[in-house]
Amino acid sequence: MAEHGIALGIDLGGTSVKVGVVNRAGEILSRGVRPTEVEKGPSGVAENIALAVEDALQAAGMQLSGLDGVGVGTPGICDAARGVVVSSGNLNWKNVPLADLLQRRLGVPVRLENDANCAGLGEQWCGAARGHDHVILYTLGTGVGGALILGGRIYGGATGWAGELGHIRVAPGGPACTCGLQGCLEAVSSATAMAREGREAVAAGRSPAMARLAAEQGGRLDARVVITAAREGDPAAQQILRQAGEYLGIVSAMLVSALNPELIVVGGGASHAGDFLLEPMRRVIAEQAMPGPASIVRVVQASLGNDAGLIGAATLIWRWAVQNRGRS
Amino acid sequence: MAEHGIALGIDLGGTSVKVGVVNRAGEILSRGVRPTEVEKGPSGVAENIALAVEDALQAAGMQLSGLDGVGVGTPGICDAARGVVVSSGNLNWKNVPLADLLQRRLGVPVRLENDANCAGLGEQWCGAARGHDHVILYTLGTGVGGALILGGRIYGGATGWAGELGHIRVAPGGPACTCGLQGCLEAVSSATAMAREGREAVAAGRSPAMARLAAEQGGRLDARVVITAAREGDPAAQQILRQAGEYLGIVSAMLVSALNPELIVVGGGASHAGDFLLEPMRRVIAEQAMPGPASIVRVVQASLGNDAGLIGAATLIWRWAVQNRGRS
Repeated sequence: MAEHGIALGIDLGGTSVKVGVVNRAGEILSRGVRPTEVEKGPSGVAENIALAVEDALQAAGMQLSGLDGVGVGTPGICDAARGVVVSSGNLNWKNVPLADLLQRRLGVPVRLENDANCAGLGEQWCGAARGHDHVILYTLGTGVGGALILGGRIYGGATGWAGELGHIRVAPGGPACTCGLQGCLEAVSSATAMAREGREAVAAGRSPAMARLAAEQGGRLDARVVITAAREGDPAAQQILRQAGEYLGIVSAMLVSALNPELIVVGGGASHAGDFLLEPMRRVIAEQAMPGPASIVRVVQASLGNDAGLIGAATLIWRWAVQNRGRS
Repeated sequence: MAEHGIALGIDLGGTSVKVGVVNRAGEILSRGVRPTEVEKGPSGVAENIALAVEDALQAAGMQLSGLDGVGVGTPGICDAARGVVVSSGNLNWKNVPLADLLQRRLGVPVRLENDANCAGLGEQWCGAARGHDHVILYTLGTGVGGALILGGRIYGGATGWAGELGHIRVAPGGPACTCGLQGCLEAVSSATAMAREGREAVAAGRSPAMARLAAEQGGRLDARVVITAAREGDPAAQQILRQAGEYLGIVSAMLVSALNPELIVVGGGASHAGDFLLEPMRRVIAEQAMPGPASIVRVVQASLGNDAGLIGAATLIWRWAVQNRGRS
């Protein structure tokens, strides 16, 4: 492939498609955003992606022929080698050959990877995980995504599901999860779970601060409300973040004992809670993980924010980065 | 190094040193066993290893010069690259340069690896894990050892502690563990834990069968007594194995969700409990792990028995098999 040193990174979500023109320093030169419009089906979504790509190229004064290719982070499970979205609840897709669809539309090489793995690649390339080969990453958003960097590479497991840390059971008898199980990490530590706990606290009259902040944005109580209230000193909001952090700590302690990582990186929207979330994590890891590995691991906030997935997706073009997939 | 196709594998335990002359088909041609005599310190133990080596060579009618080298499985944490036993409770060693000690005494190349990792290498080479690249292995003995084969290789983590599955916390508020924590897998699913539960059942008058079997061997109630009683239909013994299996299942469910292995191999003396242990494991994995990865993983008994570690140690000479250690 021609080596232009410029690639497109795409963060494909259930609501919007975010595109960035990315250079080999990990800088975003221009952006494009379009609605996903899941209801239009795979070819409609592919068309929206193509429009967002054209927006971003126009903003940078570039053409498709000036790109090394396009990397796409997709929700759910994907078969990176074949470029197929195997299963995605957010998109309501099964076995969609998205790489082929886009490659025909755009005429440049297209590669796919799971979105949480892309966020991991981004943070490893030029974010909080740079220079580290043994890293656990969480992405706290609508769900809880995860990625494992083991020996310098994203680890995919036997069939591409490895790193789905959001569905580790951590709260027996706890809230139902979207996956059909109960008490998954996603059901207690996602932004969605924080908002649910916040609404319960407001309904029970335990948080005037969250009630006021939610009212200021038309009654919508999301994780940002919980985080803002916690910063203002609201005890109920702080307790919600502490509990979410403790559950992250329980899962992390187990993974620290099993995998001996040097770094745990917490990203996604809800990670802006910072130490309200990370301090309880660190405390539980110190209490519950094996002392040797617990003594060397650090827990830090991700540094690329919501751009981690987009930047990581661009690297798919330059590094066939995700290994250990399937039987070699 | 000369390629003779014959290596020595050594299983160094706190009680005895077991040596085997192993060919490239994984067959043990001859054996030697000596007491470890921990109280004599590193140079005394190295001398006992050398004597066991000479026994095994004599039995095979061979000489040291006919070997490609010597691989040693050591308890505790070792730095394989430097050939140093970093820390071993069983041997009461800190930072012992065992590879150097033995290499000077024997005059052939010597390599070290953690004993549970050696068992993993043995099972992968010519046992239950042959042909599989994504495997979790447990060794149920005095403690609970573990090994992770990820992408075809034993994974060591950032500082060599990865795979220490025995110290994952699984029973909050449970029995104290040798590591200083409470409720570790080792404290509830090791052969030691099974024997402890058996003694409690006998003391409470709940198992005439275990009482009789223990009396037949001079009052010593070990895991073999529990397993034999379970096979005879003793409900208390079956319950002990079921509980140990359920705890293994809880840890395995978490690891299945996180790592998406194709195979879980259970070895060590207590694995002779077979389906009394494995069926509860399978049931809990099906209940608690993410459905996708749970649907593809198989749980099987190890096939090399107590020789897995010895055979795996021999492979250290032919394959610099344990990767992902330290920052590359």
